[in-house]
Amino acid sequence: MATEQISVSELCAAAKVAAPVLARAPREVKDAALNALATSLEVRSDQLIEANALDLAAGEAAGLSAALLDRLLLDPDRIAAIAAGARDLAALDDPVGELIEERKLDNGLELRKLRVPLGVVAVVYEARPNVTIDASALCLKSGNACLLRGSGSAEHSNAMMVEIAADAADSVGLPRAVITLVGGGRDQLAELATQQGVVDLIVPRGGEGLKAALEQVATIPVLYAASGNCHVYVDRAADLQQAAAIALNAKIQRPGVCNAAETLLIHRDVADEFVPLIVDRMIEAGVEVRADKAAREFAGEARATALVDASEADWRTEFLDLILAVKVVDSVDQAIEHITRYGSGHSEAIITDDDDAARSFELAVDAACVYVNASTRFTDGAEFGMGAEIGNSTQKLHARGPIGLRELCTFKYVISGDGHVRG
Amino acid sequence: MATEQISVSELCAAAKVAAPVLARAPREVKDAALNALATSLEVRSDQLIEANALDLAAGEAAGLSAALLDRLLLDPDRIAAIAAGARDLAALDDPVGELIEERKLDNGLELRKLRVPLGVVAVVYEARPNVTIDASALCLKSGNACLLRGSGSAEHSNAMMVEIAADAADSVGLPRAVITLVGGGRDQLAELATQQGVVDLIVPRGGEGLKAALEQVATIPVLYAASGNCHVYVDRAADLQQAAAIALNAKIQRPGVCNAAETLLIHRDVADEFVPLIVDRMIEAGVEVRADKAAREFAGEARATALVDASEADWRTEFLDLILAVKVVDSVDQAIEHITRYGSGHSEAIITDDDDAARSFELAVDAACVYVNASTRFTDGAEFGMGAEIGNSTQKLHARGPIGLRELCTFKYVISGDGHVRG
Repeated sequence: MATEQISVSELCAAAKVAAPVLARAPREVKDAALNALATSLEVRSDQLIEANALDLAAGEAAGLSAALLDRLLLDPDRIAAIAAGARDLAALDDPVGELIEERKLDNGLELRKLRVPLGVVAVVYEARPNVTIDASALCLKSGNACLLRGSGSAEHSNAMMVEIAADAADSVGLPRAVITLVGGGRDQLAELATQQGVVDLIVPRGGEGLKAALEQVATIPVLYAASGNCHVYVDRAADLQQAAAIALNAKIQRPGVCNAAETLLIHRDVADEFVPLIVDRMIEAGVEVRADKAAREFAGEARATALVDASEADWRTEFLDLILAVKVVDSVDQAIEHITRYGSGHSEAIITDDDDAARSFELAVDAACVYVNASTRFTDGAEFGMGAEIGNSTQKLHARGPIGLRELCTFKYVISGDGHVRG
Repeated sequence: MATEQISVSELCAAAKVAAPVLARAPREVKDAALNALATSLEVRSDQLIEANALDLAAGEAAGLSAALLDRLLLDPDRIAAIAAGARDLAALDDPVGELIEERKLDNGLELRKLRVPLGVVAVVYEARPNVTIDASALCLKSGNACLLRGSGSAEHSNAMMVEIAADAADSVGLPRAVITLVGGGRDQLAELATQQGVVDLIVPRGGEGLKAALEQVATIPVLYAASGNCHVYVDRAADLQQAAAIALNAKIQRPGVCNAAETLLIHRDVADEFVPLIVDRMIEAGVEVRADKAAREFAGEARATALVDASEADWRTEFLDLILAVKVVDSVDQAIEHITRYGSGHSEAIITDDDDAARSFELAVDAACVYVNASTRFTDGAEFGMGAEIGNSTQKLHARGPIGLRELCTFKYVISGDGHVRG
């Protein structure tokens, strides 16, 4: 594809030139582009499936696992779902131009704080080719030119998708360079991550390896769509049937995602009843349970052989799999201490009917999302009513939790006077 | 002082332990600490002035300039002003716990987005010792433990101020470690800037040298309280008397600060009348005018000898002095182009009675603060009604413009259900 003949710096510079045009585009133009993109994905789905077949063949030849090949696969249903996502975005409110605050200062100046696009946003991601369109569409709606750096294993699929997206932009009079694919290896990633004054933000969606690689080289702002080591704490005042349902949902409903629970903490006062109950339910659901000594004792001898001994490493691990670490704690404070030590600041839940325990947990747990009597699985832009998201941030600056349209924006103050000077 | 025997990492670790106590302190406790701090500064002003005398003597011996010695000086009036600042902060609303958003999701979950402290904030600054108390007080009110790294030239003054501040915290039952002085050289700065998981934010207040030093080493989030290359653009539809008053105010009212104007752009259609007018006023005010060729021609031969030829470097320079670069442009678009190329994204003003020109400028200029018919000098937390500030950010992420109490906070989502699981 053409992108490989042009340097990363040149692609970024072209995106920066295109960015102000998109930043000032009215809502109707952006929504028309999103709808054109959705229609074109469906109309050109054969082309896209052909391109995807090349990636799948290369992946098979390279010995990719069945799971990775499945992540790579595009079929008519998946393409329809991606198109529906773009249409859903078109229906959402435009974040650009939103009035965040407005006030008249004592001196008569009129101050408005307005939401505006960041400018140029780079998204770095791994195999799943649907991210190419999801990220393009989010950036388009939020008025940001985007640079997309997908996995080499999806290069044909990604190139075709970016062609379709740039065509859609072009069809409504926007510059094609508002959506650009960036290829290459580690050197090109480093080039992208050091475009100070050109690229305003880089969002990596991927594992710890990608994060570590970027931490080494990035000089532009980075917003990590991070991993989650999430906990469910069953308090002594919990409704145990409710607690079991939530723990099970948090672990098994979709174990491979960042808001799935990895460790279950159980108050000692209910461990005698709850540990056997939850161990049986988890094992029945195919979950490997790694229990501390106390939890193994509460499980009883009959279940002992079905349990794995939990190690220190298990408290730190985001399994992203049907594995659950289980620990017995003496108090809500001990649960909070454990979470403070091992949690990644993503999503943490307490199950309790005791308002004081709930309040302590809410205040003391330093995480993007703190749940009371609900599953950690709800941490999601769509679930939160924010629309689509590009990932979840566990950083404390700028965006925490779901990174949606507003989180892809900054703001400016516009101050109007009639000759005001400072005295 | 004791701080020099303990490593930076140990000081940071102690601040992190103290931080949750401060984060959960009620407003009354924080305000009592601020008022105690103000009173103690006044009561102990002799002690403080003695400590300051040691710094002044060392500064004189080291040959510091009169301007730097003046920046270092503490006298009863300055101490009273610092104390008043702490009392003013006590009177402001508590940002911690503010409800940013609240909504009931379709599934019945109650979602609240609450403002919470960042945790541990480090502030790095230069000679002015008043920053020690200003930063301590801002962090205290916003619920953040702070690490203060002032200039070596103010070490005795800073140590005494931190002692007073920590005593004030102690007097209301807060841990002394919520306010900590960090000394040492470049190695210690690097140690501070790499405290991942311990220090949540580092705010450098200082020149480009400090910024460059931190960009090299920092691995924790940095919010630069940045410099400003600010412009005033006089449109063809400007009221020229108003324009002259604003340009003069923006340049001379306090030339050494980041929101002072450095370049004046003048529309060609009014240059014949406005250039002579403003050149005379600026020169009368003691300003050195560096003019481009067109501006020199419009100034007329009689003034030519009083003008300096502007060079490319002048468009890029934050003079922070009684120097003004002047350029004639053909249109508002050309003014915007110049600002896009040379501005630092701080504060930019247009003077015009033409609503279309004002609207174009507001939309297209990518800066924290965009002014219409007002001086750039208003960019300031107190002027904006935000209370005190720790500086002004020209970054686009997290905080843009004045960094006040809210900007020193993050948020968390608290989600309450009654057994909600995701389907």
